[in-house]
Amino acid sequence: MIYLTRIEHFNAAHKLYNPAWSKEQNEDVFGKCANENWHGHNYDLYVTVKGEVDEQTGFLIDVKKLSLIIRDYVLEILDHKNLNVEVEFLQGKMCSTENLAKGIWQILDHQLPPNVTLHCVKLFETARIYVEYYGD
Amino acid sequence: MIYLTRIEHFNAAHKLYNPAWSKEQNEDVFGKCANENWHGHNYDLYVTVKGEVDEQTGFLIDVKKLSLIIRDYVLEILDHKNLNVEVEFLQGKMCSTENLAKGIWQILDHQLPPNVTLHCVKLFETARIYVEYYGD
Amino acid sequence: MIYLTRIEHFNAAHKLYNPAWSKEQNEDVFGKCANENWHGHNYDLYVTVKGEVDEQTGFLIDVKKLSLIIRDYVLEILDHKNLNVEVEFLQGKMCSTENLAKGIWQILDHQLPPNVTLHCVKLFETARIYVEYYGD
Amino acid sequence: MIYLTRIEHFNAAHKLYNPAWSKEQNEDVFGKCANENWHGHNYDLYVTVKGEVDEQTGFLIDVKKLSLIIRDYVLEILDHKNLNVEVEFLQGKMCSTENLAKGIWQILDHQLPPNVTLHCVKLFETARIYVEYYGD
Amino acid sequence: MIYLTRIEHFNAAHKLYNPAWSKEQNEDVFGKCANENWHGHNYDLYVTVKGEVDEQTGFLIDVKKLSLIIRDYVLEILDHKNLNVEVEFLQGKMCSTENLAKGIWQILDHQLPPNVTLHCVKLFETARIYVEYYGD
Amino acid sequence: MIYLTRIEHFNAAHKLYNPAWSKEQNEDVFGKCANENWHGHNYDLYVTVKGEVDEQTGFLIDVKKLSLIIRDYVLEILDHKNLNVEVEFLQGKMCSTENLAKGIWQILDHQLPPNVTLHCVKLFETARIYVEYYGD
Repeated sequence: MIYLTRIEHFNAAHKLYNPAWSKEQNEDVFGKCANENWHGHNYDLYVTVKGEVDEQTGFLIDVKKLSLIIRDYVLEILDHKNLNVEVEFLQGKMCSTENLAKGIWQILDHQLPPNVTLHCVKLFETARIYVEYYGD
Repeated sequence: MIYLTRIEHFNAAHKLYNPAWSKEQNEDVFGKCANENWHGHNYDLYVTVKGEVDEQTGFLIDVKKLSLIIRDYVLEILDHKNLNVEVEFLQGKMCSTENLAKGIWQILDHQLPPNVTLHCVKLFETARIYVEYYGD
Repeated sequence: MIYLTRIEHFNAAHKLYNPAWSKEQNEDVFGKCANENWHGHNYDLYVTVKGEVDEQTGFLIDVKKLSLIIRDYVLEILDHKNLNVEVEFLQGKMCSTENLAKGIWQILDHQLPPNVTLHCVKLFETARIYVEYYGD
Repeated sequence: MIYLTRIEHFNAAHKLYNPAWSKEQNEDVFGKCANENWHGHNYDLYVTVKGEVDEQTGFLIDVKKLSLIIRDYVLEILDHKNLNVEVEFLQGKMCSTENLAKGIWQILDHQLPPNVTLHCVKLFETARIYVEYYGD
Repeated sequence: MIYLTRIEHFNAAHKLYNPAWSKEQNEDVFGKCANENWHGHNYDLYVTVKGEVDEQTGFLIDVKKLSLIIRDYVLEILDHKNLNVEVEFLQGKMCSTENLAKGIWQILDHQLPPNVTLHCVKLFETARIYVEYYGD
Repeated sequence: MIYLTRIEHFNAAHKLYNPAWSKEQNEDVFGKCANENWHGHNYDLYVTVKGEVDEQTGFLIDVKKLSLIIRDYVLEILDHKNLNVEVEFLQGKMCSTENLAKGIWQILDHQLPPNVTLHCVKLFETARIYVEYYGD
């Protein structure tokens, strides 16, 4: 068993705002992150897959193919987007890094070739905050 | 003459959109950055000042004071904000990293103590793009 | 289950010196690190907690609260300190990165709110050396 | 149980080329990486060992000794080398980061002192691609 | 006047070898870098241009266009190549980072649009070594 | 003219304390940095030299020789040292990053070979604070 990680980047706007709460309650809980006019981040996304090395190629998976899967299925719907408004898998959910990582896992888990298994989705919101999700 | 740099961070939403142009023209020129629903970035701000070392302290300037000036006058108006909507010095201007760096220079140039001179405002929009402004 | 990590920084002086040994033995084992006049480091501290996401906030834990806990209970006693002389939990122990990480774990394990569990304390002594502790 | 990681660097040339295939097949599968004239990388190598802390030293292992083991047994045969041509443990195998990490594990696993156990070999091929191997 | 920098990456093989010298002399001067079987690097390329901000776009230059110019004219001939064997502008010259940076300058200086001026080519050979060239 | 930079590292203890002042005045001005029991840092040192490229080697200067000069004349007296107590060039001066950078310049300016000129000493005290000195 070996683990391979590819790092990709995307930029997006969001706010942390629970529509079931008053504006004051949102500001109490989320502070500046509740700004109704949005703020945003550069996200660094680490996708780790695991499996056995193919003897013919020496690869677990061709990292260019892994990069294309992440770009086609994840970055395509997140990059330069408003996460609250434009991302289907976040509708009805809080737009946190935790929920973003879990949603990215759900997408990638269906798109990988059969010989590799998704191991971890790690997402940096800033250089000093990151979330890791290993599935359920 | 010696140079001291302090690095600070802020997050913000913005879009690149010229209101004098049609939506199509904006998308032609700015691509994904013209998304009307906004996107955002983690900005890394490098502020460099220059001057002579004070013999009593060994400091050009106390870096904690420089940090407070940047926080009080720059981060206060930019961090977790929508740059197009909420930042006065960008009204009527394109919300680019170039104009952001120039505006930060104008602010800081009036707030530094008399013994130091502002040398450079360097602003990373992503880990692979940055702008430097040295004044006029 | 999801994992959230917050990165904090502190600076400190220390030496590696076993008082039960002669000066020569200390220099043999610890080399330059045994310098009786002390040396020091910028430490990068990664604190990882785990648990379930709260549906109302989308958070495992508000990362600002986690940061405050680390600052109030860990940085307050370590930042800009002499680790050998001024840190109670290191008295009678060798002042190594290993023991520092274990001591930070003991502190944080008692200060976290009940819905999260401490998962890992990771401590960089230099950019090329780090220790990880996951509890016993 | 505690974990200690030492990071080392080496540079090397290689190509991804399966001699059992035609040139066209190699270019189809490996693209630019199949260039017969070689290309190369700066590799960052993270070696993680685990075990118990020695009370006399406060160390899991003296990190300078760990660094010397990595230099003497790994960097000595990989640094500034052509991985396909000059590295014995890669003969008859594809010269991928996956196989490189596994080969480094085999070497180090025999060279560590008895009180520590090899936990992970992590190898960055570029700043955005890395492999982790934890043994079989 | 404002300065904009775009960072790009490429990988390549090379050796430091003066064909006018004996093998021994090459090894005396260049050490491991003279290995006849080649070694290689991940190069980080910083391209800085300067000029005036366009009021309509807020840009000095569209950074995506700058990136495409670097990719089309520089990375196309350097990425995944053997610098000694396959790069025309290095024929008859020593294949050093200094000469590589100067050659990249010559190429880019002819490819930039008229409203911007090339200011600096900065090239990292490793994380701890870089060269800067500002033209003649 | 071309510029070459080598990055080196050292660790040291220090305090900011003006012996002509009272303890209270020192704490007022320097805060935690005045701790009489010392604190410390990992310093990153960037040394930039300039000159013409030698045609025979392709080098401005062999970067290994530059590294050795920095190690022999700078790191030898600063690494794992107490800057206030053990460093001759800081005696009678405040032990600030500014004075440290100026002192490193004085040393290196006398040790470089005649074909290169010292251009800049850049010194990071933390990841967010650095000083640059270009001589007088």
